[in-house]
Amino acid sequence: MESQFQKYLGTQTTLTDDAIHAISSCAIARTLRRNELLLEPGEVCRHKVFIVSGLLRNFITTANGNEHVLHFSPELTWTLDVESYDKEIPSAIAIGAVEPTEVLLWQKADFNKLLADIPLLKQFSEQLVARTMYYNRQRMATILSASPEEKYDDFTQRFPGLIARLPLHMIASHLGISLKTLTRIRHAQLLR
Amino acid sequence: MESQFQKYLGTQTTLTDDAIHAISSCAIARTLRRNELLLEPGEVCRHKVFIVSGLLRNFITTANGNEHVLHFSPELTWTLDVESYDKEIPSAIAIGAVEPTEVLLWQKADFNKLLADIPLLKQFSEQLVARTMYYNRQRMATILSASPEEKYDDFTQRFPGLIARLPLHMIASHLGISLKTLTRIRHAQLLR
Repeated sequence: MESQFQKYLGTQTTLTDDAIHAISSCAIARTLRRNELLLEPGEVCRHKVFIVSGLLRNFITTANGNEHVLHFSPELTWTLDVESYDKEIPSAIAIGAVEPTEVLLWQKADFNKLLADIPLLKQFSEQLVARTMYYNRQRMATILSASPEEKYDDFTQRFPGLIARLPLHMIASHLGISLKTLTRIRHAQLLR
Repeated sequence: MESQFQKYLGTQTTLTDDAIHAISSCAIARTLRRNELLLEPGEVCRHKVFIVSGLLRNFITTANGNEHVLHFSPELTWTLDVESYDKEIPSAIAIGAVEPTEVLLWQKADFNKLLADIPLLKQFSEQLVARTMYYNRQRMATILSASPEEKYDDFTQRFPGLIARLPLHMIASHLGISLKTLTRIRHAQLLR
């Protein structure tokens, strides 16, 4: 039976069935409980991660214990700590499950071999990196320039499916606004 | 005579003299006056840009006229609007000169040919993209989590040479803090 991941590659790429099979067969499946960490700060990020179902967040925890969400990764997206993975250095961030989550993991050596063997996978991978760069640039611009209301509107438009799945404090932390401000914005919108 | 750019490639890469010559000979030199724009919002970014001397900034201007600096590019670094360049769509940002600046420009077709012909240039280019990604991730974490004092300290440590060359309002805009807060921080540091 075709897996969720195989369907995803089939619709997102022009990879052959053989290539899709080769990529799938190197993956290690893992299930995470809510709040379980896939990567702890200080650990080396040794895997590419595909989210089959559920929701992960990449976040940092400051010395005073505050958490700041760098980004969310819902089902059918990829994540990792790119600097830790590339350089094999300890990660400054954590990756944790917001909900029960199923992931596929590829070890770096295995994934590198796939990239070398399958040029279309390399091309797809470069497209994903580029999209992440565009998104991060836009996110930086929004964080620097937008009002709290604009930040929230941008988030709801970009990720309409996520609002109902996330605790408010995580949305606030992702937007770089206080929980109080977020609550005020949402209350005002209900009255519109 | 060896140019600044040729020296830069000679120290930063293991490219042969012939390759360095091929890369240099495709470049178009341009001089910018202070405040002159190299890229206007709405224009397609058609060049890779290397800064030979001077200082550029990538910034956005919001509807109310406020400017927000995404990043600074001093001498011996590269810049562009990556999304506009890749997709050939209008740029949402501007690139302008903070000081009189000399740049080298490569048209996309020329640079793509160089990348295809010179594998070491492609490798170097990928390294630069990766470094930009690492830096942007760190910058995002700093903007979301750090206090104004920490943001300023981080900037002075990362770019010690830039502080004296930048108007305070541009530093404040880059850090996402108000000019008043920046002035207070700098004053407090003078008294330490």
